[in-house]
Parts: sequence; structure tokens; C-alpha cells
Amino acid sequence: MKKLVIIGGVAGGASAAARARRLNEEAQIVLFERGEYISFANCGLPYHVSGEIADRDALVLQTPQSFKARFNVDVRLHNEVLAIDRQQRCVRVKNRVTGETYEESFDALILSPGAAPVRPPIPGLESPGVFSLRNLPDMDRIIAALDQNKPTHATVVGGGFIGLEMMEALRERGIAVSLLELSDQVMAPVDLEMANMVHETIVGHGVDLRLNCGLQSVENTEQGLQLSLSNGDTLTTGMLISAIGVKPEIQLAVDAGLAIGELGGIQVDPQMRTSDPAIFAVGDAVEEVDLITGEPMLIPLAGPANRQGRIAANNVFGANDSYNRTQGTAICRVFDLAVASTGLNEKRLQRAKIPFEKVYVHAASHASYFPGAHPVSLKLLFAPDSGKLLGAQAVGRDGVDKRIDVLAVAIRAGLTVFDMQDMELTYAPPFGSAKDVLNQAGFLASNLLKGDVRLCHSEQVANPTADQLLLDVRNPGELSKTGTLEGAINIPVDQLRDRLDELPRDKEILVFCQVGLRGHVAYRMLVNHGFSAQNLTGGYKTYLAATARF
Amino acid sequence: MKKLVIIGGVAGGASAAARARRLNEEAQIVLFERGEYISFANCGLPYHVSGEIADRDALVLQTPQSFKARFNVDVRLHNEVLAIDRQQRCVRVKNRVTGETYEESFDALILSPGAAPVRPPIPGLESPGVFSLRNLPDMDRIIAALDQNKPTHATVVGGGFIGLEMMEALRERGIAVSLLELSDQVMAPVDLEMANMVHETIVGHGVDLRLNCGLQSVENTEQGLQLSLSNGDTLTTGMLISAIGVKPEIQLAVDAGLAIGELGGIQVDPQMRTSDPAIFAVGDAVEEVDLITGEPMLIPLAGPANRQGRIAANNVFGANDSYNRTQGTAICRVFDLAVASTGLNEKRLQRAKIPFEKVYVHAASHASYFPGAHPVSLKLLFAPDSGKLLGAQAVGRDGVDKRIDVLAVAIRAGLTVFDMQDMELTYAPPFGSAKDVLNQAGFLASNLLKGDVRLCHSEQVANPTADQLLLDVRNPGELSKTGTLEGAINIPVDQLRDRLDELPRDKEILVFCQVGLRGHVAYRMLVNHGFSAQNLTGGYKTYLAATARF
Ligand SMILES: Cc1cc2nc3c(=O)[nH]c(=O)nc-3n(C[C@H](O)[C@H](O)[C@H](O)COP(=O)(O)OP(=O)(O)OC[C@H]3O[C@@H](n4cnc5c(N)ncnc54)[C@H](O)[C@@H]3O)c2cc1C
Ligand SMILES: Cc1cc2nc3c(=O)[nH]c(=O)nc-3n(C[C@H](O)[C@H](O)[C@H](O)COP(=O)(O)OP(=O)(O)OC[C@H]3O[C@@H](n4cnc5c(N)ncnc54)[C@H](O)[C@@H]3O)c2cc1C
Ligand SMILES: CC(C)(COP(=O)(O)OP(=O)(O)OC[C@H]1O[C@@H](n2cnc3c(N)ncnc32)[C@H](O)[C@@H]1OP(=O)(O)O)[C@@H](O)C(=O)NCCC(=O)NCCS
Ligand SMILES: CC(C)(COP(=O)(O)OP(=O)(O)OC[C@H]1O[C@@H](n2cnc3c(N)ncnc32)[C@H](O)[C@@H]1OP(=O)(O)O)[C@@H](O)C(=O)NCCC(=O)NCCS
Repeated sequence: MKKLVIIGGVAGGASAAARARRLNEEAQIVLFERGEYISFANCGLPYHVSGEIADRDALVLQTPQSFKARFNVDVRLHNEVLAIDRQQRCVRVKNRVTGETYEESFDALILSPGAAPVRPPIPGLESPGVFSLRNLPDMDRIIAALDQNKPTHATVVGGGFIGLEMMEALRERGIAVSLLELSDQVMAPVDLEMANMVHETIVGHGVDLRLNCGLQSVENTEQGLQLSLSNGDTLTTGMLISAIGVKPEIQLAVDAGLAIGELGGIQVDPQMRTSDPAIFAVGDAVEEVDLITGEPMLIPLAGPANRQGRIAANNVFGANDSYNRTQGTAICRVFDLAVASTGLNEKRLQRAKIPFEKVYVHAASHASYFPGAHPVSLKLLFAPDSGKLLGAQAVGRDGVDKRIDVLAVAIRAGLTVFDMQDMELTYAPPFGSAKDVLNQAGFLASNLLKGDVRLCHSEQVANPTADQLLLDVRNPGELSKTGTLEGAINIPVDQLRDRLDELPRDKEILVFCQVGLRGHVAYRMLVNHGFSAQNLTGGYKTYLAATARF
Repeated sequence: MKKLVIIGGVAGGASAAARARRLNEEAQIVLFERGEYISFANCGLPYHVSGEIADRDALVLQTPQSFKARFNVDVRLHNEVLAIDRQQRCVRVKNRVTGETYEESFDALILSPGAAPVRPPIPGLESPGVFSLRNLPDMDRIIAALDQNKPTHATVVGGGFIGLEMMEALRERGIAVSLLELSDQVMAPVDLEMANMVHETIVGHGVDLRLNCGLQSVENTEQGLQLSLSNGDTLTTGMLISAIGVKPEIQLAVDAGLAIGELGGIQVDPQMRTSDPAIFAVGDAVEEVDLITGEPMLIPLAGPANRQGRIAANNVFGANDSYNRTQGTAICRVFDLAVASTGLNEKRLQRAKIPFEKVYVHAASHASYFPGAHPVSLKLLFAPDSGKLLGAQAVGRDGVDKRIDVLAVAIRAGLTVFDMQDMELTYAPPFGSAKDVLNQAGFLASNLLKGDVRLCHSEQVANPTADQLLLDVRNPGELSKTGTLEGAINIPVDQLRDRLDELPRDKEILVFCQVGLRGHVAYRMLVNHGFSAQNLTGGYKTYLAATARF
């Protein structure tokens, strides 16, 4: 390996270049970047729009000069690779400043061109005032427009994490925001009931959230941008951020005849090699394999891009390193909430026809008697036979990242819900609980699989059969505050043992409380007294989240 | 099983009682507690002394009344079990209010008497003004003494977590504090260099920290308590908190002829059964088995007590549940720092003659360009052959609990440092990094085991041989701020490639930077240019921590 050429100078490309140089001092390494910057923090862009990251310079981690000094990499900014010639083992490059084109040979090539914002064929989307956000110049344009035009209202199209972060950034700047999302929820990696907790916060922060609502056209008028929406409404806005997703930049690969996967990403083997053994590809541009299903996945996230860049460099220099599949761990901050997930969600499990069970727990982020504890709402998905963990989602103000990180590693290690009972986690009042959220979820799921409890879900309590009775075991004060299920009778758990004779023995009792814990105590009491019962997992709180419509 | 008797009504005992009732409605359950409260938050006591937990009531989670209503448990406060009659299957009990004694029969018995503060035979330790802290009355006494006597100086003896929390609580109340610790460090679960980071914070918060210093006698004088110390010093103080550890309450078990383990805890099998099959024991009073070494361990922590109580109850009612050993996961907040650990530390590995390697990483708790990031200092211990994780320690202001929790689960799952490279953790700027601390530690440790890097430690750079040269690759500005190693030459990493001819080829180069990362880049450059080298793991920061003396 004498000469390594890398296309793309950010997460995957810069990581590959740095690692390559650490492995080998002699190889010539040329890195092409068509943009103005390498090694910048894409992920930080929305937070500079909001002002939370005050210093723009903080977003640029390396420059061509620093990269030259430290890694002796020949970084060529404003140089776009136009084509790959696999026969000749060279790339054709255009210098966007001088306009000249030239060829550069390679022995090995690493592609890390990333993914571009999806630009749907919506009339008017090229209007001034319409933006997408991928890099620093995009960000600069948005900030300049905000500073100059001082819009009082902005519209974000797309409820993925970039859309959500931009929604928040614009609200932080005091601008009224409409968020349009074509599906019935934001944050596609989590299921609807979890997303609904996020919807509540979004609405609570004054955002005009419009779900099931697509953008159909944009018209640039004197009053601003006139948007017409799929539900027939119109909306006048001062700025439009289009964030409806990203798609792999594959044109170079396609033109070069490299294999493309079924989801439209560059196909690679576990060593990050494309269908041409001298050419590797990493990051947002490639298609990955799901850890659990083995299905192809697109994971446009920075962690995978960084690690894949390192693996590709290793393999260029003779190693046989693998990227061991992906589980799609992701997180997003939405105002005061975090929402995160790892592994498969319920929608995907259903599509893949994988049998699963699920439980919900809402438990305090740390000891409830210590200030600052907030509920972590956790949804756990697992195999009904073995208890093997399949996926997890969490929403809360604190400690969400911790729980999902632990579960991400647990899933990768092939652990089960039974193992979660034994998890020995850090506990002191400021940090956790003697029985952590994760232990509680493990207890509950193990109870289910061992037959110690039968659980029901929102669908069932919303539509009880004639043979079922709804029993709310909360205190009357709670009911008057939050309401209860239609037709439910109310016996507080602490009175239940003395009032069992008020319950019919010929009906199945669907018991519930606020989060499931007192319902569990009541459930066990009932079945030990010979009643037939089920406990609503996640309680009334989950029911409300599951049935809310925004 | 008709009648279950439980001794001790807090973490282990109350958990066992609650679970027992959930399993069975018919059994009679009697819970004896000699004190005034059940189900209280021992762990919260220091935080009510400090005022951080403002409401005393928040510390009491259940009362006999609430426990009766919810769990139909016959809770007898102020009732101390004096003896266990195994033949007759009954306990002799003293009602401490009425003074009467009586017998209570049992079919099964669960002991959860906890551990009592160690009271060493130090003359004068019974003086007024000397306190220990285990329960609410202890706490009330301390607060009353603070309120009444308004001491301006207090002394804490013992640098375990209770001592540290009390030290902080007293400082929070504006009192000058001396902390005496007989060994050379606080927080025994971590190694000295990690503890030194804590020492720095302790001293930084104005505490008079005295390590290697024991208390020899206490004299109650007009001026306050006169302490004489093992180093010959004397100290006058207004209040003394004795927190030199706890020891299992085994008298009942000893008198009943139950087997006691070699560390002085009640011996139990994995089902939490004592040497008498009708008697179970849990919590601080029992001896556990270390996950990795299989050696006996005392783990006086709330998580194990809670989970063991649940397991014992399961087994009383016919299950065959196991407590799957312990790894001693622990955490403590010390002012603005958290210090945590899981698995084995270096001291224990050495004692157990288990071969190990170690690496240090100091990486940001979340993306360094996002506000509020602080370094997490992580020490990772692992097997030199397989890379299997053996232990981890971390110190930092943020995200310490998260990393140790992930590693606790990883250790339990038998993962290796190679697996840490693949950890797919949540990343958005407020929560993590594209390459988390844990990934970085995995890269570094994998590099070591694969031979991609040779690492050296503080001992070596402190005493280089004549054939070794110290090379500091930081920038001159850093050196003038923090100093450097004696005899080190300085070539910043970004100039190194051009200045290689300044380095002798006949010496081994011990390279270092601030935390190890630039040292790694320099190391790889050097070896790829034919030099022999080693990189100081954890850099100058770890060196300072390892060599500091407080
Ligand atoms: C606003 C925003 C917020 C984000 N937030 C998060 C987050 O919180 N967490 C997370 O995990 N991920 C986040 N991401 C995603 C993350 O940034 C990407 O997954 C990651 O950068 C992908 O790395 P990459 O190397 O594949 O592509 P990129 O980082 O996009 O780099 C590709 C580079 O290749 C260049 N290029 C493309 N084609 C050519 C060519 N022909 N010639 C020369 N150069 C070319 C492009 O100009 C581009 O600079 C965010 C992304 C954005 C845009
Ligand atoms: C100040 C303090 C802070 C702590 N902080 C933490 C922390 O941050 N994290 C953590 O994990 N752990 C912490 N712990 C430890 C944790 O509280 C214990 O591990 C846990 O409470 C042990 O539970 P247990 O049931 O074994 O014993 P205990 O909770 O001590 O309960 C035992 C009970 O048994 C009663 N008893 C004993 N003998 C008899 C008898 N013969 N008859 C009747 N009753 C009897 C005692 O009165 C006592 O109330 C802390 C402890 C203290 C004191
Ligand atoms: C800046 C950038 C070029 C750095 O690449 P890098 O040098 O590979 O990464 P790091 O600086 O994290 O260093 C990692 C290396 O240091 C080593 N390392 C880390 N901490 C160490 C320590 N304490 N001691 C010794 N070595 C250490 C790692 O093992 C790794 O080396 P290896 O690959 O040879 O094993 C690249 O991350 C980048 O461009 N980032 C910005 C773009 C981006 O990621 N955007 C999306 C997220 S916002
Ligand atoms: C208060 C105390 C008696 C509670 O005991 P407990 O009832 O066993 O514990 P919890 O209230 O956490 O409830 C746990 C039970 O609820 C279940 N549960 C938890 N969340 C649930 C949910 N959302 N849905 C359904 N069930 C749930 C668990 O599965 C478990 O039931 P199981 O054991 O039958 O499987 C006991 O923890 C105690 O005394 N604590 C204070 C003392 C102490 O621990 N001190 C040291 C720390 S400061």
C-alpha cells in the first residue's frame, strides 16, 4: 500500500486518515473534501444556531494545516471527486476554486461521502428562505437569514433528530415554530406511545406541532413563504427548514459500478470493503447490517462513521477487522427531555415477524427522596421464550442516556431480562436507586415470563370485554387530577385486601395504577385470593401516552 | 410455609416482607425491628444533615401502618430479637418499650440485621460529642448537636463513603472539617492514583485531610474534644463523627450456631440460605462471593440487600433463585466529583495474583465542543491474554455513573476490551461523544493487547534507565503551566515528524502528553520511523495523580 486516497473529510474520512497515518508513516495519504472544512462537528450545528454553543470555532476540530502537521495528510479542500476509474485506479478531481480537473492515482480508496439532505420534488423548495442543514456554510446561511430577516415564525419540515434540534434552536431564539411531520410521530426509532411523551413536551414549549401533515408546495410572496399542506391548510412563514431525512451519496459509487444495497446505500462487507476489494466505503453512505435481524439498515450517525473509518484504515493496511453490525443506538434532546433507543422497536419487530413481549416502567432517575429525580419512562422489548433483549426505548429528563447505554451493551452481549435482575449498578442517592429502573424492568419482565404476572396493554383496557372489569387502585385524589378509564371502579390498593368482596368473582379484573407498580401489588393480591386478573403495564401513564393524539 | 418471621425492617428485611406477601396471601408474616422506623433511606441520612434533602419525612418510605395496609405484615417496632431457638423454631423477643420478653414461632426465618458501625477500642470514644451514623435517631442526634452546640470545627474519622458524605455535609453547613484516615487514601475500592484525584478535591474544598493518620484517644475538655493522633499531633474539635467502617451484626447467628464466614459475615449459599435450611440471611450481615475471584466479600450496600431480600423471599416460597455473586459496584459523590468502581481493583488483583493489564483514559463526558463537558478519568483493568474485563474505576464531575454502570454489566457479561471498541452508545452532543470514553479505552486496550502500542506507567517515567529518554510532546505553554518530568525533552507532537533527527536512535523513548492521546500519535510515529518507544498511559495527568502525596 503506497497511496491511499480518501473521499470526504469529516467523520468517517478524517477518522480513516488519522488512523491510517498512525498505522503507516510511509504511505501517501490524500484526502479530498469538496467543501470548505474538514473534521467539523456536524452534530453541533443546531446548537450554534440556538446559541448554546456560543463559539463557532468550537465546531471545527481540525484544519488542513493541523492535519498536515499531525498526520502528514495531504488535505485538498474545495476539491471534488467527479469519478472513480477502477481500471486505472485513479480518481478524477475538480478543483472548485480554479475550475481545473485532474487525476489522482490510488492503491486503496476509502469513500466517506456521507449522506445529503433529501430534497423532495416539492414546488417552490428552491425559494430563498428555504434551508437544509448539513455543514457549516448551511448553518451560516441560516444564522445570516435569522439575523437579517428576523423572522417571527419559522417552519421545520421533518420530525427526525435534525428537525427536532432545529425546532428547539429556533424556539430558543424566541421564534414561533411550526413543525410538520408526515407520519403520526416524530423520532421514528421509538414507538408512538413513547413519541407521544415527546409530542407533549413539544406542544408544551409552544410549538405548533402538525403530525400527519406533509408539505405540498412553497410560494415566495411579499408576506413570506406561503406553504400549502397536505391537509388543505396553508401557512405563512418567514423561514423553512427542510429536514425530512438524508440519503446516501452514492453517485460516485454508482458511476463506478460498485454494488449498491437494497436501501440505496453502498454495499460493503463486514470489513467495510465494497464490491471492489481495493475500495472501502464507510459512514452515512453505506448500508449496514442489523445486529438482530441481519437485515440491511441505514444508520446515518457519527459513532458508526467514526468507528468504520478506523476499521477501513486497519483493513487497508492488512488487518482483518470487522464492523460487528449495528443496533441503531440513538438519542435526541428535545427541550428538557431526552428520547433514546437501541435495538428493534415494536414496529420493526412486527414487520420482521419476530415474536416479542413488552413491558413499561416509569421509575425515578435516582433515589426519589433526593432532589432532582425525574421519571425515566422505559419500554423494554424481549423474546417471549428466552427473555433475550431485543430493544429498548426511554424518555425522560435525566438518566435516559445511561439506561439506554447499559441496554445497548446488554443487547450486544446477548443478555436476557433475567440478567437485568442481577445488574449491579452504581447506587448513591444522587446517581441511582437501590433497585434501578433497569432492575425493576428486569423483575417485571421476568415475572411475566415466569408466569408470576399477566400483563395487559392499552388496547385491552380501552376495550374491555363483557367478562372483564376495570379496577383502578390509585387514590381518589389521583383520579380527580388525571381522570381514569371509563367504567373503572376505584379501590385504592391499600384498602383492597379488606374490600375484595366488592369484586365479582366471575369476571377477569384488569387492574391498573399510575405506572404499574401498585397495580402489580394488587394483581398479586387478587390472584392469590383466587381472582383472575391482568395488570396494565406502565399503568395509566402509559395508557395516556398510547392513546393521546396530537 | 405458614409463618415467616423477619428480623430487621429496612433494606433487606422490608424488601423480603413485601415480596413474600406478593407471593403468598396466606402466610403470617411478622417483621421485628428493634428501632423506631422501618423502610428508611439510610443512604439519604448524610444529605439531610447537609440540608440537601430538606424534608426529614422524605427519608421514611414506609411505616408499620402503611406496611400493614399494603402488605398485611405484622410489623413490630421496638421489638428486638434476642435469640433464635432452632430446635423449637422460634425466636425470643424483647419489647423495648414494655420490657417484656416473649417467644414467636416461625416456619421460615429471614435475618436482615445489617451491619453496625465499627467502634474501635479508642479511649474516650463514648464521650458526648462523638457520633456514628446508621439510622434516623443517630442523624437526629447529630443535627441536634450541630444546632445546639454550633461547633465551628468537626472531625470525621474514616474515609469510606459514609465518612466522605459526612465530611461534605458538615462543610456544606459551613463547618471547618478535619478528615482522618488511617490508610494512605480514601475510598478503598479505588486505587491510590484515582483516590488522589478525590483528595485534591477534598483539600480544594478546604478540608484538613490527614491520611496515614489514626485516632488514638479522645478527651472531653472545656475547649471541646481533644484528639490525639497516631502521628503525635493533637486536634481540638467540637464534634467527632466515627465512620471507620461497619461490621456484620452476627451475634444472633453466632448464638444460634449458624455458620459464620471467614470475613465475619453470616455464611449463606447462593439461595441466601444459612447453614440451617429454614433460616435465610441477607444484606449487610452476610458474606457474599466475588464474581471474579470466587473469594468471600462483604458488600454493605443497599442494592445487594434489596435484591437478596427478594431472592430469599422467593426461596422461602419454594423457588430456587440465586444471588449471582457480587462485583462490588459502588459510587460516592465527593463535592463536585463522583468516584465509582466495579469489579476488582489493582490492589486486589495483586493480592489474588491475577495477571492484569491496565490503561487510563481521560476523555470528555460529552462532546467537548458542547457546554458542560468535563473529563471522565477512567482506569480499566483487564486480562492480558483474553482481554476479559476485570475491573474499572472512574472519577469525574459528570457521566461517571454511566460509564461504570455500562462496565459493570459488561464485566458481568464476560465481555472483553475488544468488545468495548464496538460499543454502540447514545451520542448527541449533550450526552456523549462519537467515540465515547468507553470506546477510546477499548481502542487503547486493544492496541496494547494486539501489540500496536507499548505502554509505560508512572513508576517507569519517574525512574527512567540510562537507555531511556523522556519525550514530552505537549506544547510549551502546557509545560510552563503544569511542569514536566525531570530530564524530559520537549518536542510538540505536531513538530515531531520534522524533528525526528533530534532524537537518539540508541535509546528507548518514553513519550508522554497530558492524557495519553497525543502521546499515542507520537508513539505510532516513532515506531513507524524505527524508534523503540513506549507511551505513558494516562499521560502526565495520571503521573501527577499517581505521584501526588496528600
Ligand atoms: C445537523 C446535524 C446534526 C447531527 N447530529 C448528530 C448526532 O447528534 N448524533 C449522531 O450520531 N450523528 C449526528 N449527525 C450525523 C453525523 O454527523 C453523520 O452521521 C456523520 O457526519 C457521517 O459521517 P460521514 O463521514 O459518513 O459523512 P459526512 O460527515 O457528511 O462527511 C462527508 C463529506 O464528504 C464530502 N464529499 C462528499 N462527496 C464528495 C466528493 N465527491 N468529493 C469530495 N468530497 C465529497 C462532503 O462534502 C462531506 O463533507 C448529525 C448530522 C447533521 C447534519
Ligand atoms: C449513612 C449511610 C449511608 C449509606 N449510603 C449508601 C449508599 O449511598 N449506597 C448504598 O448502596 N448503600 C449505602 N448505605 C448502606 C445501606 O444502607 C445498607 O447496605 C443497607 O441498608 C443494608 O440493608 P440491611 O437490611 O442489610 O441492613 P439495615 O438497613 O441496616 O437494616 C437492619 C435493621 O435490622 C435491625 N435489627 C438488627 N438486629 C435486630 C434484632 N436483633 N432485632 C430486631 N431488629 C434488629 C436494625 O435496627 C436495622 O434497622 C448507607 C448506609 C448508611 C448508614
Ligand atoms: C478529529 C478527528 C480527525 C480525530 O480522529 P482520531 O485521531 O482518529 O480520533 P481521536 O482524536 O479521538 O483519537 C483516537 C485515537 O487515540 C487513541 N487514544 C484515545 N485516548 C487515548 C489515551 N488516553 N491514551 C492513548 N491513546 C488514546 C485511540 O486509541 C485512537 O487511536 P487508534 O485509532 O490508533 O487506536 C475525527 O474524529 C474527526 O474528524 N472528527 C470530527 C468529525 C465528526 O466526527 N463529526 C461527527 C461528530 S460531531
Ligand atoms: C420500600 C420497600 C419496602 C419496597 O419494597 P418492594 O415493594 O419490594 O419494592 P418496590 O416498591 O420497588 O417494588 C418492586 C416491585 O414492584 C414491581 N414493579 C416495579 N415497577 C413496576 C411497574 N412499573 N409495573 C409493574 N411492576 C413493577 C417489581 O417487579 C417488584 O415486584 P416483585 O418483587 O414482585 O417482582 C423497600 O424497598 C424498602 O424498605 N426500602 C427502604 C430501605 C432501603 O432500601 N434503604 C437503603 C436504600 S436508601
